[in-house]
Amino acid sequence: MELLEERIRKDGKVLPGNILKVSSFINHQIDVELLDKLGKEFARRYAGQTVTKILTIESSGIAVACATARYFNKCPVVFAKKSSSSNISDDCYRTSVYSYTHSKNYNVIVAKQYLTPADNILLIDDFLANGSALSGLTDLVCQSGATLVGAGIIIEKGFQEGGEILRKRGYRIESLAIIDSMSTEDGIKFRS
Amino acid sequence: MELLEERIRKDGKVLPGNILKVSSFINHQIDVELLDKLGKEFARRYAGQTVTKILTIESSGIAVACATARYFNKCPVVFAKKSSSSNISDDCYRTSVYSYTHSKNYNVIVAKQYLTPADNILLIDDFLANGSALSGLTDLVCQSGATLVGAGIIIEKGFQEGGEILRKRGYRIESLAIIDSMSTEDGIKFRS
Repeated sequence: MELLEERIRKDGKVLPGNILKVSSFINHQIDVELLDKLGKEFARRYAGQTVTKILTIESSGIAVACATARYFNKCPVVFAKKSSSSNISDDCYRTSVYSYTHSKNYNVIVAKQYLTPADNILLIDDFLANGSALSGLTDLVCQSGATLVGAGIIIEKGFQEGGEILRKRGYRIESLAIIDSMSTEDGIKFRS
Repeated sequence: MELLEERIRKDGKVLPGNILKVSSFINHQIDVELLDKLGKEFARRYAGQTVTKILTIESSGIAVACATARYFNKCPVVFAKKSSSSNISDDCYRTSVYSYTHSKNYNVIVAKQYLTPADNILLIDDFLANGSALSGLTDLVCQSGATLVGAGIIIEKGFQEGGEILRKRGYRIESLAIIDSMSTEDGIKFRS
């Protein structure tokens, strides 16, 4: 998506360790108008698909998930919660997600009542890199018996393995910008 | 706000310990259409005020903050981040917020570049009870030298002291539903 790639080139910051900072417009300060356009683009890509609910993970997926829901008949958004407790509650679906940012595992939960076999779920998140968060979300959907329509990702780090692994499992993933390589010296190269 | 009070009566759950669960429409599953109406109502109440930025706190303030921003010329939303680290970075404003839900203090940070003396800030959050989160947000705004326009809260627990303390400090707080009392036996009584 040209508009998004331009914005990443302009305002994204490449830091050592393959970190791309987009906190001025996506995940600390939020450009509400941009997110609206991203939501519209997800809807264009998934046109004709029935989506009854959007599932994301706190915190930085929430804004783009809500922006996207506007284009799917304002369907409900559910955000999976990170939980420090390892208690297994009967009321929740639960999975584990490894955060490379914080070098630790999180338990991630969704109350069972919000994901049902009747639901058609679109997953939305800001980043896809190693695929741990997205894989966790697919696991929650699987546990619930809901139908997984696919995933919409703002930025995929194409040089990490998450996208390939999950597509090989048969999941449809639509990433609005896929980065093939990035470095502080050479900048960002997008997949064309 | 009648519509909101009706929804809280219908779908909110009062639990022992003065807990009001609204996770089916506000802070786990999100009713995007309802939040849109809440955002419109905040804009009506703050009509004529200049707002250049909306500040909230992760996670459950993000969705309503973004919905509200749509009615303030799609101004940027900034969400303060909870940080487990107590490291003081020169790049961030930092304050401490006590969470009664988790019985612990969080460090809450905002990158300095996103709050400037030129900004007119509207604070948005889902709940106001003891006032710790909202007080922390006012502290961040104060540190930045930005102008604080006021706060917009979805649900205020009027029987807890946060609202009174902060209004006495001179802050304008607009709460869309104020609960005077609630119990599992007698249900919820709203301030009229």
